[in-house]
Amino acid sequence: MNSTAQRPRVIIIGSGFGGLFAARALARADVDIRLIARTTTHLFQPLLYQVATGILSPGEIAPATREVLAHQDNVQVELGDVTAVDVTSKTVTATTLDVPRTYSYDYLIVAAGAAQSWFGHDEFADFAPGMKSIDDALELRGRIFGAFELAELAAADGRHEEAKALTTFVVVGAGPTGVEMAGQLAELSHRTLKHDFRHIDPRNSTIYLMDAAGAVLGSFDESLQAKTRRAMEKLGVDVLLNAKVVDVDARGLAYQDEAGETHRIQALTKVWAAGVAASPLARQLADQVGIEVDRAGRIPVQDDLTLPGHPEVFVVGDMMALDNLPGVAQVAIQQSRYAAKKIKADLGGKPVTEPFAYFDKGNMATISRFRAIAEIGKIKVTGFVAWLLWLGVHLVYIIGFKSRVTTLLRWAVSFLGRGRAERNITEQQVFGRMAMHRADNLPGRAARNLGWKSDDQD
Amino acid sequence: MNSTAQRPRVIIIGSGFGGLFAARALARADVDIRLIARTTTHLFQPLLYQVATGILSPGEIAPATREVLAHQDNVQVELGDVTAVDVTSKTVTATTLDVPRTYSYDYLIVAAGAAQSWFGHDEFADFAPGMKSIDDALELRGRIFGAFELAELAAADGRHEEAKALTTFVVVGAGPTGVEMAGQLAELSHRTLKHDFRHIDPRNSTIYLMDAAGAVLGSFDESLQAKTRRAMEKLGVDVLLNAKVVDVDARGLAYQDEAGETHRIQALTKVWAAGVAASPLARQLADQVGIEVDRAGRIPVQDDLTLPGHPEVFVVGDMMALDNLPGVAQVAIQQSRYAAKKIKADLGGKPVTEPFAYFDKGNMATISRFRAIAEIGKIKVTGFVAWLLWLGVHLVYIIGFKSRVTTLLRWAVSFLGRGRAERNITEQQVFGRMAMHRADNLPGRAARNLGWKSDDQD
Repeated sequence: MNSTAQRPRVIIIGSGFGGLFAARALARADVDIRLIARTTTHLFQPLLYQVATGILSPGEIAPATREVLAHQDNVQVELGDVTAVDVTSKTVTATTLDVPRTYSYDYLIVAAGAAQSWFGHDEFADFAPGMKSIDDALELRGRIFGAFELAELAAADGRHEEAKALTTFVVVGAGPTGVEMAGQLAELSHRTLKHDFRHIDPRNSTIYLMDAAGAVLGSFDESLQAKTRRAMEKLGVDVLLNAKVVDVDARGLAYQDEAGETHRIQALTKVWAAGVAASPLARQLADQVGIEVDRAGRIPVQDDLTLPGHPEVFVVGDMMALDNLPGVAQVAIQQSRYAAKKIKADLGGKPVTEPFAYFDKGNMATISRFRAIAEIGKIKVTGFVAWLLWLGVHLVYIIGFKSRVTTLLRWAVSFLGRGRAERNITEQQVFGRMAMHRADNLPGRAARNLGWKSDDQD
Repeated sequence: MNSTAQRPRVIIIGSGFGGLFAARALARADVDIRLIARTTTHLFQPLLYQVATGILSPGEIAPATREVLAHQDNVQVELGDVTAVDVTSKTVTATTLDVPRTYSYDYLIVAAGAAQSWFGHDEFADFAPGMKSIDDALELRGRIFGAFELAELAAADGRHEEAKALTTFVVVGAGPTGVEMAGQLAELSHRTLKHDFRHIDPRNSTIYLMDAAGAVLGSFDESLQAKTRRAMEKLGVDVLLNAKVVDVDARGLAYQDEAGETHRIQALTKVWAAGVAASPLARQLADQVGIEVDRAGRIPVQDDLTLPGHPEVFVVGDMMALDNLPGVAQVAIQQSRYAAKKIKADLGGKPVTEPFAYFDKGNMATISRFRAIAEIGKIKVTGFVAWLLWLGVHLVYIIGFKSRVTTLLRWAVSFLGRGRAERNITEQQVFGRMAMHRADNLPGRAARNLGWKSDDQD
């Protein structure tokens, strides 16, 4: 492993499920791996909503990538934003604090994932943050708990309309993330916070779950869609379907119903869980090999996950398009393992010829504590049993024994009890970003951050 | 408790040890309590250094104040920055998002604490953040772990001088906070991170612990001072005493030694644990009653913790001066309980006449895992036994059973094992604040925050 002769160089872009599992799958390969990522952590995205709603801490769902890979000698982890890939010269350029560095590769695995998409309305992002990063989750945490703080003051002052708008939450997008977020907002309002205030009753909060399509959990079986919708409504969530968001601002949003009529909801806190857009690297690669990305910006890959004419370039996970595979962790994990296997076989002189085949382990989503839905092939499970399944599967995929133990503990505290251990809002959020909530103030991202007040200020 | 007749109004300013324990001590009093604080949480300041070094999450040392007091019906918690107190009209003005609200009180307990002081050099604050808030701890966490990330890149590029400056840490102030911070930086460098990098060896990091005075832990017995100093040096910390910081910038700091000679240290990461300045409310109150604050901005109180001529106004904790009492949690806790007792006795028509008496339960500081020093009256304890004492005492004062359990678990992971569960750096820090580290860039706080990059940016 430590020979000084140059070993084949594998560059992996991204530290999500695709990137991390690709690196791990190459653990025993005689290669030099460079894993380049924009963040220092491996983020377990499916649990972001629990960070946003105060159940988990960022560390529990985002261990440091280099800690996870510390004992894998053939990999070096590097913090950098990959701005360019050149498949002809076989180089990758990564930038960190404006310093660009260019590396050559023999094999490339691109697993840069997808970001939130506001469907061409990036101006919505300030008012309805996405759910894709730790930053997003902490931003939303500050807004959610901050909204209750301000509602308490508004109600005490007799500004009841303001208090109402502050305790109205809209989740845009009724996929698994949206459903889980809305469910947790309901739990929070109706259970966790019920004794915490004196002038408002958090149980009177309004939570909307909205989708432009006609169903919740569109990717699941219809029977589960209906069950989930009923369960959400029972939790006190207002489900609005066939509702297309046409405008979002600091004070609320407007949507168009099926009949083309426009309605407005006054809601200070909005969560955008609607669309995704593949990493811009997808388009960059597509241009170089003369193919087109799809509507979500994903690059079509060949059945062995490579690019046409470039058997050494693999694209895996959320940023590729193949056979309508969904943007879920399992696809990224299985694809990264397949890519690793191809590389190892290629190095061993015995190429793998069978195409990538996805083994669908099923889909699941939690609705509330003790309640989930799961779809495994033709089997459909709902309620407590599905929730236990969810619990088990998520514990398995949380990296590291210690995080598993503390996460289980937090869940016990939050689900059996009523606590939320991680309700902390930073002062920056209180005195800076929460200024967003001011009626007369609709600042952009930069202005929002300028509100920072130092400790020693009176 | 719920009579509609107006009950005596008690306003408490601050949610630290003084404010929270005052509210709790009045739990069964027939009063209306309004607790106003700038943050939404009760911060356990003595463990901030563990948040900064990735052992604990913010939630574990900062539970929501209103959650702690949820079931105490006679108290309402309010988020606000108290900008004015008028002891003549008996009113307090609090501001939240520019909306001022003025409240009358019958009794006032001011427990607004102290902020970091850079001894008249506030321009140092950008480059050497303090250790007083969750924001401070998260800022330092980002800088510490970020520095290692950048050092790895610098070393890979052959910029060894840069890598050296990035892995040099200076802690200014050798009180308990400074000692604990330096000790944890040593643990982090020499133990936690030792397998995580490929181009640097974190064990070669340099950690300075610096003080203008001639001893570490100046407030402790001399034998313990010497022991602590030796223990720090054994951990690999360079202790610089009689060293007065004269300049701090993004790249390092300059200090004057005893002989008046100036030296410079190249160190990207500096921590300021040196001085404190009482809340500006102390001066405001002092002006109104015609007394002077001391050098640290603290207001001298009478022996019953009230202001001259105002038996209804108590000042407790870090912002008052009385009998040279130290700025520690125990003083704030005991004083707030005394103030509550006085108020209850006053309401009952049987005034308390004996002055406040401080019962010194002792002092302690951790040096490294398994090692602490403690001073309880004339008894001095060091090593593992003192560390067990430290463990017990801190667990008792951490609020809430659940946080005790998870904290104990984190400690097991970090001290028995090598993990740091909370190493997460936000993207804002990576792409915004970490820009601080650029040699050619010495921005102020605002500029630093402007560096924010959105997810969807390529």
